[in-house]
Formats: sequence, C-alpha cells, structure tokens
Amino acid sequence: MKKIVIVGGVAGGATAAARLRRLSEKYEIVMFERGEYISFANCGLPYYIGEVITDRKKLLVQTVEGMSKRFKLDIRNFSEVTAIHRDRKTVSVKRVLTGEEYEETYDVLILSPGAKPIVPPIPGIETAEALFTLRNVPDTDKIKAYVDEQQPKHAVVIGGGFIGVEMAENLAERGVNVTLIERANQVMPPIDYEMAAIVHTHMKEHGIQLMLEDGVESFENNGRRIVLTSGQVIDTDMIILAIGVQPESQLAKDAGLELGIRGTIKVNEHLQTSDPNIYAIGDAIEVKNYIHGFETFVPLAWPANRQGRLVADHIHGIDVKYNGTLGTAIAKVFDLTVAVTGNNEKTLKQLDVPYEVVHIHPMSHASYYPNAQQMTLKLIFDKQTGKIYGAQAVGKDGVDKRIDVIATAIKGGLTVRELPDLELAYAPPFSSAKDPVNMAGYVASNIMDGVETVQWHEIDDIVANGGFLVDVRTPLEVARGAIDGSVNIPLDELRERLHELPSDQPIYVTCQVGLRGYLATRILQENGFAAKNLDGGYKLYSLVFGAK
Amino acid sequence: MKKIVIVGGVAGGATAAARLRRLSEKYEIVMFERGEYISFANCGLPYYIGEVITDRKKLLVQTVEGMSKRFKLDIRNFSEVTAIHRDRKTVSVKRVLTGEEYEETYDVLILSPGAKPIVPPIPGIETAEALFTLRNVPDTDKIKAYVDEQQPKHAVVIGGGFIGVEMAENLAERGVNVTLIERANQVMPPIDYEMAAIVHTHMKEHGIQLMLEDGVESFENNGRRIVLTSGQVIDTDMIILAIGVQPESQLAKDAGLELGIRGTIKVNEHLQTSDPNIYAIGDAIEVKNYIHGFETFVPLAWPANRQGRLVADHIHGIDVKYNGTLGTAIAKVFDLTVAVTGNNEKTLKQLDVPYEVVHIHPMSHASYYPNAQQMTLKLIFDKQTGKIYGAQAVGKDGVDKRIDVIATAIKGGLTVRELPDLELAYAPPFSSAKDPVNMAGYVASNIMDGVETVQWHEIDDIVANGGFLVDVRTPLEVARGAIDGSVNIPLDELRERLHELPSDQPIYVTCQVGLRGYLATRILQENGFAAKNLDGGYKLYSLVFGAK
Repeated sequence: MKKIVIVGGVAGGATAAARLRRLSEKYEIVMFERGEYISFANCGLPYYIGEVITDRKKLLVQTVEGMSKRFKLDIRNFSEVTAIHRDRKTVSVKRVLTGEEYEETYDVLILSPGAKPIVPPIPGIETAEALFTLRNVPDTDKIKAYVDEQQPKHAVVIGGGFIGVEMAENLAERGVNVTLIERANQVMPPIDYEMAAIVHTHMKEHGIQLMLEDGVESFENNGRRIVLTSGQVIDTDMIILAIGVQPESQLAKDAGLELGIRGTIKVNEHLQTSDPNIYAIGDAIEVKNYIHGFETFVPLAWPANRQGRLVADHIHGIDVKYNGTLGTAIAKVFDLTVAVTGNNEKTLKQLDVPYEVVHIHPMSHASYYPNAQQMTLKLIFDKQTGKIYGAQAVGKDGVDKRIDVIATAIKGGLTVRELPDLELAYAPPFSSAKDPVNMAGYVASNIMDGVETVQWHEIDDIVANGGFLVDVRTPLEVARGAIDGSVNIPLDELRERLHELPSDQPIYVTCQVGLRGYLATRILQENGFAAKNLDGGYKLYSLVFGAK
Repeated sequence: MKKIVIVGGVAGGATAAARLRRLSEKYEIVMFERGEYISFANCGLPYYIGEVITDRKKLLVQTVEGMSKRFKLDIRNFSEVTAIHRDRKTVSVKRVLTGEEYEETYDVLILSPGAKPIVPPIPGIETAEALFTLRNVPDTDKIKAYVDEQQPKHAVVIGGGFIGVEMAENLAERGVNVTLIERANQVMPPIDYEMAAIVHTHMKEHGIQLMLEDGVESFENNGRRIVLTSGQVIDTDMIILAIGVQPESQLAKDAGLELGIRGTIKVNEHLQTSDPNIYAIGDAIEVKNYIHGFETFVPLAWPANRQGRLVADHIHGIDVKYNGTLGTAIAKVFDLTVAVTGNNEKTLKQLDVPYEVVHIHPMSHASYYPNAQQMTLKLIFDKQTGKIYGAQAVGKDGVDKRIDVIATAIKGGLTVRELPDLELAYAPPFSSAKDPVNMAGYVASNIMDGVETVQWHEIDDIVANGGFLVDVRTPLEVARGAIDGSVNIPLDELRERLHELPSDQPIYVTCQVGLRGYLATRILQENGFAAKNLDGGYKLYSLVFGAK
C-alpha cells in the first residue's frame, strides 16, 4: 500500500492526513511538522493576544498524540524537511531539537508548507527589539507575553491587510494605543477604496491612528523609533510587522519543481506539482482565480482545507479537481463586519475587464424590528451577461450572510438577474421581504435594462464641469449635508417642478441611498430627460468624503 | 394608455403598483383596499403585541397619502371590490364607510386579496368573547388593547403554525401564561418532527404549555373555558385562533375564474388567471412547488413581493415568469431560530419520492471563539443525483445564513456534492474553515459514496431486534446518557478491540453528533465489517427522546 509523506501539519496537511485515513486504513501516513504544534487555530491567534479567546488550549485544535491515535498517523513534530530527493523518492528530515538528519522514503509526497510573513531588509530591522511577526503559536506567545509583561502604551502595526487590521483591533482591545501604517491608500486590499473608507472611519472612531500612503524608511533606537517615508517619526513600544506573506516554496524550488507567480508552487487542477508524485496545497501554491482564470496567490484557510480534502481524494484515485479560488474573505473590525467575494474593481481594471457597479445601503433586517443595522453592499457584474464578478459588504450585522449568499450564487452560475429570484428566509428579525441580495439584484438588473448611474468618484467632476445635479431628498435631509452644487427638489414635488430643470443637458440625480434617486430618474426619463442616478446616493458619497 | 386596477393594497398589490409606476408614468393605476391601511408590516404584527416593536407607526410602512403622491396612484382605502364584471371589464366597488357602490373600469385587473384566518364552526365560537384572529392592524390593535387593559393571566393559542408560535412567544413576553394547542404531533409544519422536537423543548423551557395531538371540541362560558378532544378542559382569559389561513378567492370564484387547490386562485406562470386580463398574486394564489412542481399554497411575504414585481413587468410587456415557490421560511422562537427551505420528509413521503437525510450539529462559528452556538442542520437530498430537496435548521445563531445559502444553492442547481465547494466567508467570529453547509455537503456526499446510516427513529427497533450498537464516545460522555442497549468502545480504542464485535451481523455505530461514528464506521468497513452510523448521533436522538 502507498506510503504518503506530508510536509506541514497545519490546516491543509492535517486535513489531508485525516481524509486519507478515512479513505483507507492501509495507507502508511507520515506527517512532518517543523514546529511543536499541528493543526492549530491560525485564524484565532490575534484574538488570543486580544484576550477575546482566553484559554490557550483552545488554540490547539488537535494534538500530536490525539491525532496520531485517532487517525493512526506517524506524526513527527519538531521535524523539518530540508530536501526532496525526487530521483530516489525520499526526503531529508532534520530533527529540529537535536540537529540530527535522516532520510524518509515516500510513494506520494504532499507539500503543505504554508506562507511566512515577509520581513523586508529595512534599515535597523535587525536591531529592532520589540518587533514581531505573527504566524504560529510561539509567535503568539511572544507577542502576548510582551503585552502582558511590558504593558506597552503604544504599538505600531505595519501593514493594513486582514492580519494587520485584526492585530490593531486586538492590541487596542488590550488598551494599547495603536498606529497602523499602510503604504496603499486603504486597508484591506480585497475590498475597494470606498468600502475601505467606511472601515477607516470606524477604526479611527475606535482610536486607531491610521497612516495611509506612507511606509517605513528605517527603524532607529532598537526599534523604539520608526522613520516614515513621509519624514514623520513615530516613537513606539512595540511593532507588529504584517505587510504580507510569501509562500514557503524554497524546498519545492530546490527540488526543481516548477514555481508560479510570486514564488508560489505551481500545481495542476489535481493539485499535482510538475512532479506528479508530489502534490502541493494550501498557502504556498498558485491557484486559478475562479471567475477570470488568472493565476493568483490566495493564502486563506478555506482553500487550504478544501485542497487538503481533494488531494487525499485524488491520491486515493477519485477523479476530483480544485476549481479555483473565489477569494471569499471576511474580518471583524471592532463592531463592523467586512466581507468580500470574487473580484474587486482594482483587479478588473488590471485585467481590463469592463464591469458595472452598484452600491446599496439596505437594513440588516426589517427596519421596524429592533436593532436593524444599515450596511453598504456593493455588487460588481458584467452589464451584457449579468455575470457576477464580485461583491463587498461592510456593516454591523448580517454582512456575512449576504456575502455567503452571493458567493453561493456565483458558484451556482447565477446572474444578477437571478438574484431577485433567490427565495431567502424572511421574518422581521432576520431580513426583509426583499432581502439585501434581492435588492442588489434588482438594482443591477435596472442597469442592464438601461438605467444609467454615475459613481461617487465621478460626481464632483461632473458638477464642477457644469453638470446639473438634483438632490431629491427632503429639505431637512439636505440641511444635514449635501453635495456641493446640488439643487434640492424633493422627490414628491418633482413631477410638478420639471420646468425648473434644464432640458438641454443630462440631469444627474442624488438622494440618500439611491432608491429615491432611481425613482426620480425614472420620472425624468419618462418625461423626456436624459437622467443619471448617483449610485449609492449621498450616503456613499459622505462615507467616502465625510459629510459636507 | 392602460388602466390598471389592483384589488388589495398590502404586500403584492402595493409592490405591483409601485413597480408599474416606475415602468411608466402613463399608466392609470387605481388600487382598492378594503381596510384603512395599505402596505403595513404584516410580519411585524405579533411583535407589536409583544411590545418588541413599541412604535405603532412603524407598522405602517406606507401611508395612502405618501404612496399616492410618490407613485402618482389613485389609492382608495375603505373600498371593497365586491364583483368583477369580466364582460364589460369593470369591478363593483363598495365604499365600506358609507355602503355606497359604484363601478370602475379596468384594462388589466390585478387581484391581491390575500388570505384570511380560518374560523371553523366550533360549538360556542359565536359567543366566545375574548377570541381573536390576527391578520391586519385593527386585529392587532384589538389584541394589544385587550392585553394592555384586561391584563389576562392566561391565554390559549390554537394552532402551532408560524403565527401561532410567534403569538405564543409574544404573549409570553407580555407575562401571559400561554397554552398552545395543536392537532398535529408537532408545531411548525414546514419542518419535520425531530426538528420540531427541539422547538418543543425550548418552548416548554420558556413556560409555554404545549398540548399536541389535541384539538378544540367546544368553547364554553363565553369562551372562558375550552373543552378539548382529549376531554381536557382549560380555563383561560383569552384565545388566539391561528389554525391556518385560507385564500380570499370568493371574488375570483364569483367571476368564474378557475380555482386551484384549497380554494386558491389558479394562475399560469405569468400569474394570469383563466382570464388573461386578470392577474392574481400573493397569498390567494396557487403556486408550483419549485423543486417537485406540484400545485401548492404558500402564503408568505417573499413570494407575494416577488409576484408583485413580476406581474407589473409582465403587464408592461416584459417576458418574465414566476418560477415557483421553494417555501423558504423562518421564525424566531424565543432564543431559537427555526428555518427551512425546500421540501421536508413529510412532503416527500406523500409524493412517494425516495430521499436521503443527514443531520449534523455544527457550531455557528469557530468553537474556540466566544459564543459559538451549536445548531442542528438537516439536509434532504436524492442519493442518485445529489439533488437538494430541502434543508431545515434550528439553533441560536447562524441558522438564517445556512438556510439562505442552501436556498441559493438550490436555485443555482447545485447538488450536495457541490456544497463542499462553496467558498464561504471564514473568520473565527463568523464560521469555520469548513462551514456547516460545507460539512452537510461532505456528510451527504459520503452517503452518495456508500456510507450507510440509520435514523433516530430506527435505532431503538434495531437494538430491540438484536442489532449490535457500539457507542464510540468516551466513558465520561456515555455516563451522561446513552441509548439503551449500546456497548461502549471509545473510538480511539476501536482498532484494538475489533475482536469484541460480532462478525456475523452488521455493526451499528453511534457517537455524540455523528462525526466520530462516521470515523468508526470507516474503520469497521475497512476491517471487513458491515457498519452503519446513527445519523446525527446521540445528540439528535436525545433531542427527540430526551436524555436517557
């Protein structure tokens, strides 16, 4: 019977081992893990530092002893695989604690080495003392011990990705003043700028100092002082370096296996590397984007787990393949949920794929039932076919549900025209008779039917260049803030006041969230005007630019 | 331009009117409503009685004045349509407040009359004083005034459907002792018995006295005393009659329009009645079951709203059709969420459709993150094709999300084999790397791959007839309760204790939720035993039968 050797005992590796055993009692399965722990709660680590998770044992999902026994595995922790000898189908293994080395044979090899934090050669980084990266349990222990014992007053988080933002939140929850530095103009790259703007505001409200479009030039004073590209200088008590991760592909590279983009391990749809006896899964591999098919690198837990299952099935002779990664991701940011699936505008622009966008601001459930929360939901799609390219949502409640529904719709091949047909569960505590996803589908279908919109980033230029913008909200709403240059004609007076509008130019319309603007647009179009609605209304505009 | 007359200004009717106006400024649109209020929050009424919703104005989603103005509608409330004259395309309208009658012409007629509570001719019902039904705002006002002013100590709710259960909860929230009487052996007919059993326990824990498999024989003493079929007698201060609703189809019937099952108005896929100039939508119509195509009656808000939109589109010349009703439904029951989509076992048995069932008990999110709640999720599917027939879930958190995802998967034509491929949003506060829906897909796929299970209602008979049942939990777990006649061999000892098992008969396996049982089943099968796993484990068994 086959002998299967797995390199890496976390996430994908552990999943593959367990599935292989369920498939057959006869496989010989050896799993090497460089560190002490297998199958730990990667995604929970920031929350242990933040003392949201208080019991360290909970981070250890499976122990070496427990998993070995249950799944009849030969698990060897503190064991680093240092080389693959494809000619004789062996790996070199170093016992980390003793330095001793030996070779182990395999029939099939699964590489699940993961990805490691990028540590760039910034001047002064070698002598920075309280500088941490976060990947595993020992890293977590170090950071938590530092916070517990040194009680830092201030921390700098470098990098505004999901881990950086989660660390900023968890350090803030510990009472640390946090400055987050991000080179881009926004945090959380999988979402687009206007959605991130909502997150920026919320983080600032929770005391995070955000320094966007800035980077670290050097560390001074043993890492107690950070000099930024902008020239600003920050004194701090600790630093979390979270600018991103890179695949652990050195072992694969040294073995002559083909690599993919950004140093990933290249695999086929069966997750086989360029050597068919060697599979690779998880954060280290190149995957195909599910929607547009390009090669990409998506180090997330869901793909790793799914791949772990599929690799076991394929080794067992089942004809399965990995269909690519959609990139569904989610994070809690204080009281907000931020979630995304599919491709964002930035990616589509790079791909030169034409697309349309709608933003809506629905309530999480019936507005007349207590505690309904308004969310911002963005849908990106192809105007010709209605194909869903992606969705993003930010809000305090119900965001995860809507993104999951849209991720499911994408996998089901549904178009935006079919979203209104989704028969979702409605009772007042949970949704509305028209769920936010139904609504997004209606609004997107309107675009396909010829309703024209302009975007939040276009309207100022339009008005500056003489565009006529009608705000159809009530005077009371307008008094609380409106776009410069807009003219107020409340929706319910519009039909009687059409003569106030110029007939020789398009009329741009705005309201609070886009719904009344749409109604106004229809009235105007029916009366012979060329009308365009401001997508997302003043709400989205003011979320990005602040109230005017 | 067409003159469109709408009968009924709530839900579907109001939706149709608004959509028609958005489609064209030129339609003449007349909407008749028998009552005072249009477009009120039907589904919120019980919560106003329960004082969860405290502001009565919030129940009135749109006012006659506001909606008339905004959508340029001729809305006539207190106006009952008493006859349709198809020959001359008019309706007779009675002004409810004056009794005055007149005729109104139409080009197209939309019937949206709704459904009314069934009031059976139970002896004594005419003289029962504090007996209420709940359909509209005046009904709500009456019930709330009675509770406010009379401060009843005890109430009887007759009927355990969604409205009955919601009324029981809301009266209990007001401090009223509630007895709920239901003729069937379970509440909430759209879910199956074992799922309802969880609800029964929860309702009892919240002080509701449940009297199942019993009915009302007569009311005595002006409705202060109820005599049941069982002979039991209940004294009470008020009665909510909620045994079901029936379509308001008399008007359609009198006009010679074809009727469907249970007195519904029959419509085609474009929602046209047997007279193509007359459409019908909402709670009064017959719909097709989305999955199996049979005719059915599903009075729910989502279909009414969807149909309201589609009827407007079709009248406007857009080629749309209503694809049938899945029956997705949800209710809050105290701390529980109960949700369902598609068809249940009871329905499939009636249809004589073969099916398979799996039950799992996943956590709402990563168990190591605070406040994870265990849910029970049931998936019903076809073993040959993997087609999803339905799903039901009960739990304290995350239930709505999973049912919505499965409802979406059904509409996307996904099979149970594709559920593991759903790339759902994972971070510890929201889900697990394998989401409950992914897990249900894995477990169902295992069944398709030949894993055999037995159900909660089969195992007692199996053991009684000499079946060998191994409980693979730890002795500590078994000590807290186990199925009579089971033999305890912990999973991690199973491989060494195979000799304790009979080799001449199938081995039945149970554990807590079904997962370890599955692992044990695989080990047994790989060692030559015929093994079957108890689906849902001891957890489901004890939820139905109570701890042993």
